[in-house]
Amino acid sequence: MSEQLTSREENYSQWYQDLVMKADLAEHSAVRGCMVIKPYGYAIWEKMQQELDRRFKETGHVNAYFPLFIPKSFFSKEASHVDGFAKECAVVTHYRLKNDPDGKGIIVDEDAKLEEELIVRPTSETIIWNTYRGWIESYRDLPILVNQWANVVRWEMKTRLFLRTAEFLWQEGHTAHATAEEAVEETIKMLNVYADFAENILAIPVIKGMKSPNERFAGALDTYCIEAMMQDGKALQAGTSHFLGQNFAKAFDVKYTNREGKQEFVWATSWGVSTRLMGALIMSHSDNDGLVLPPRLAPIQVVIVPIFKNDEQLNAINEKVAELKKSLEKRGISVKYDNRDTHKPGWKFAEYELKGVPVRIAIGPRDLENGTVEVARRDTKEKAVYQMTDLHLKIEHLLEQIQDNIYRKALDLREEKTNRADSWDEFIDILDNKGGFVYAHWDGSTETEEKIKELSKATIRCIPMDNPEEEGQCILTGNPSGQRVLFARAY
Amino acid sequence: MSEQLTSREENYSQWYQDLVMKADLAEHSAVRGCMVIKPYGYAIWEKMQQELDRRFKETGHVNAYFPLFIPKSFFSKEASHVDGFAKECAVVTHYRLKNDPDGKGIIVDEDAKLEEELIVRPTSETIIWNTYRGWIESYRDLPILVNQWANVVRWEMKTRLFLRTAEFLWQEGHTAHATAEEAVEETIKMLNVYADFAENILAIPVIKGMKSPNERFAGALDTYCIEAMMQDGKALQAGTSHFLGQNFAKAFDVKYTNREGKQEFVWATSWGVSTRLMGALIMSHSDNDGLVLPPRLAPIQVVIVPIFKNDEQLNAINEKVAELKKSLEKRGISVKYDNRDTHKPGWKFAEYELKGVPVRIAIGPRDLENGTVEVARRDTKEKAVYQMTDLHLKIEHLLEQIQDNIYRKALDLREEKTNRADSWDEFIDILDNKGGFVYAHWDGSTETEEKIKELSKATIRCIPMDNPEEEGQCILTGNPSGQRVLFARAY
Repeated sequence: MSEQLTSREENYSQWYQDLVMKADLAEHSAVRGCMVIKPYGYAIWEKMQQELDRRFKETGHVNAYFPLFIPKSFFSKEASHVDGFAKECAVVTHYRLKNDPDGKGIIVDEDAKLEEELIVRPTSETIIWNTYRGWIESYRDLPILVNQWANVVRWEMKTRLFLRTAEFLWQEGHTAHATAEEAVEETIKMLNVYADFAENILAIPVIKGMKSPNERFAGALDTYCIEAMMQDGKALQAGTSHFLGQNFAKAFDVKYTNREGKQEFVWATSWGVSTRLMGALIMSHSDNDGLVLPPRLAPIQVVIVPIFKNDEQLNAINEKVAELKKSLEKRGISVKYDNRDTHKPGWKFAEYELKGVPVRIAIGPRDLENGTVEVARRDTKEKAVYQMTDLHLKIEHLLEQIQDNIYRKALDLREEKTNRADSWDEFIDILDNKGGFVYAHWDGSTETEEKIKELSKATIRCIPMDNPEEEGQCILTGNPSGQRVLFARAY
Repeated sequence: MSEQLTSREENYSQWYQDLVMKADLAEHSAVRGCMVIKPYGYAIWEKMQQELDRRFKETGHVNAYFPLFIPKSFFSKEASHVDGFAKECAVVTHYRLKNDPDGKGIIVDEDAKLEEELIVRPTSETIIWNTYRGWIESYRDLPILVNQWANVVRWEMKTRLFLRTAEFLWQEGHTAHATAEEAVEETIKMLNVYADFAENILAIPVIKGMKSPNERFAGALDTYCIEAMMQDGKALQAGTSHFLGQNFAKAFDVKYTNREGKQEFVWATSWGVSTRLMGALIMSHSDNDGLVLPPRLAPIQVVIVPIFKNDEQLNAINEKVAELKKSLEKRGISVKYDNRDTHKPGWKFAEYELKGVPVRIAIGPRDLENGTVEVARRDTKEKAVYQMTDLHLKIEHLLEQIQDNIYRKALDLREEKTNRADSWDEFIDILDNKGGFVYAHWDGSTETEEKIKELSKATIRCIPMDNPEEEGQCILTGNPSGQRVLFARAY
């Protein structure tokens, strides 16, 4: 491999960017802030989608599709939503182009100006709740448990592949309920779905919690989130689930007739994860040699590389590999056999390391004689010689071990980099010298929260679920506090 | 069912619209020309996606994602493309909104005007070929076989749910090849994939052919298509596959080094189908009682309705149905058991007929005694009493029969409504009185084609593949012609 990555130690941010580009995950497009998701990156996203979609359906949700465009006036209907979302947006003002009468090219046709501008959806609460008004009459129409897979646009000024892009792909669940209790239950249920997905598929341990009022979704009564720690100790919000109360029902006049025949406003939730998870995945597990993929997300789980000097050797290996590949695929394992003669084995080894393929099997003429193969794990870089007998079962087991080990490693790192601070100096010292998560007391006011952010660049990531009560004093103000909250510098 | 559909005979167009709305497939949104695809409609679209996606992957394609926005100048780069697509588009001119200083609401921030306008993609050839320039250096990088699932926007003035909407969902394949032969082969291969999908999954017989030069995709050297006949005799283009030659490679300077070390322009194809297929599906098979779904696309393949007078009876039926449901689901059959006590069996029967569920099983106390059930087919409306023994196998077989019958019925209708015309009067007479497809001679000129369209409202749907040579005279001009082409009035 001529294509070396910048090392994490040298420049973490450059390492990330190099990795995303060189592992063929994504690249910048000709349109500012918009990315191209390349086939290898998209194949990982598809696996995420499948796993999430299955979980959504198992919990009773169905998919639907709502318009890309939202009339500008819709944003003004929910007071706090307008401040949060109706700012940096892509605005459609015209619906026609024409040839430039003065010269070359095409220009906007000023005769084709829209009466009301359309906003490319940054999130779909408004258009969806405007639609739900027609779907809901009585309690018999509830709950509505709908999810949408879609692209959304938020005009970010500073962008970074996967982590922050103007256009990104996501899913957004939008549910409607007869009671507040049911909506809260849904909010928590989906938070748990996200946490399960993050831990068991992405192999990323997460902390479930509630956002402080200041960090709530614009229009929500409560925002719950899962927070993950990246290898550099910074936090990344990996998913959110919102209890929206009756705010959108009131804004769009969505009422239902309850069992007693009385009209009431409907209760709402929304919840989403996005292609940002690709960034979380990369920064949680990868190393200076490239991507490290948990087997459950790897588009190629096993790569087989033949070691040969001539066609005769290759033919003998091909034959043996055909058998092996078949037995692995029968177990549902995705296998790539790379027997190209245009590249040397060493080049291939580096290439599949860069791409994060969990298991590499090398097989040469001596292996054929001995009935063995060489098996290399991507996560630990360990190599071992395996007997061919029941190799498919051993590999299946190895993939499970790797999945487990990647999670364990991330969990260990998080525990190592989680600390408690009892004073301001200690707080700053930890953030500057150790990084990671810091549990500390906060007096509960937005003013203090903002001051802490300004002084330390750390934010309250969440108030963890089932947080123990503990008497203490706010690290900034010394005011009394009843619990510690989770602070970190964040992506 | 109080919700009667307008009958096909009375008003075909109203029947279609009623059906789409009442079967919960889609509805108009608050945004002009944009539809909401409702959960039941979306579930059918998801099944189409799965079947297509599997076929794309089996033929070596991978998915990727390209930006929603295309810089305006990109359209001008390919001369014929600009005329075809850079007209009725959604144009993004600004990237920020602000509070109206004079009053309520929000307004466009004139300080946030884009230097170059962005067009919401109507199709992605330009942005994709601009990207491919960076992906292709030598023949070793070819072919590129990429597909994208995406939303696109074409600002249609007259819209109709599924058939013609401003925003629609589709897939667009974009492939790059070293030779013209290979690109042509790909174009035909994907046409065959579409035809196979249409006939075996949608149960819609199609005619494969080539478009006349006048009807080609803007920027293509050849456009191939599949054409289907709706029940009213009108044609509907159900998919297209384009051989783009080197037009986009030249427009975006995409060259590769061939085996001899020489630089050459890359050859291209593109191909797509869209949510328009939902319209084709509805208009091919449905009737005055509602949707008729081919079993391979039906989100619910079997509905079971209990007939009961009291809880005791229901409990006994529930128990029996639990077994039956399990045995059906084991065979991969999707089953809904509707034992709500809020609706009468008759209401349920009508509801699932409206929704096109292929098989309905009714089961009452006497059935329990006799070890029988009543089975009704949606396609023929036939009812029969089945013995419980091996019922899952019988139902599985019945679903196959239904799939086959729906196809057969559509094929019979097409054959009945296909005619040959040898004179202008005969041509008009067939179109006005019988409708359907007409094979007729045409002199091959665009002028004649346009004149025929003007006079008859019929267009050349395609020049069928493997069209037999036949000497004749153009129905309009009397000029010599070497083959008949397929004419019809079309959606």
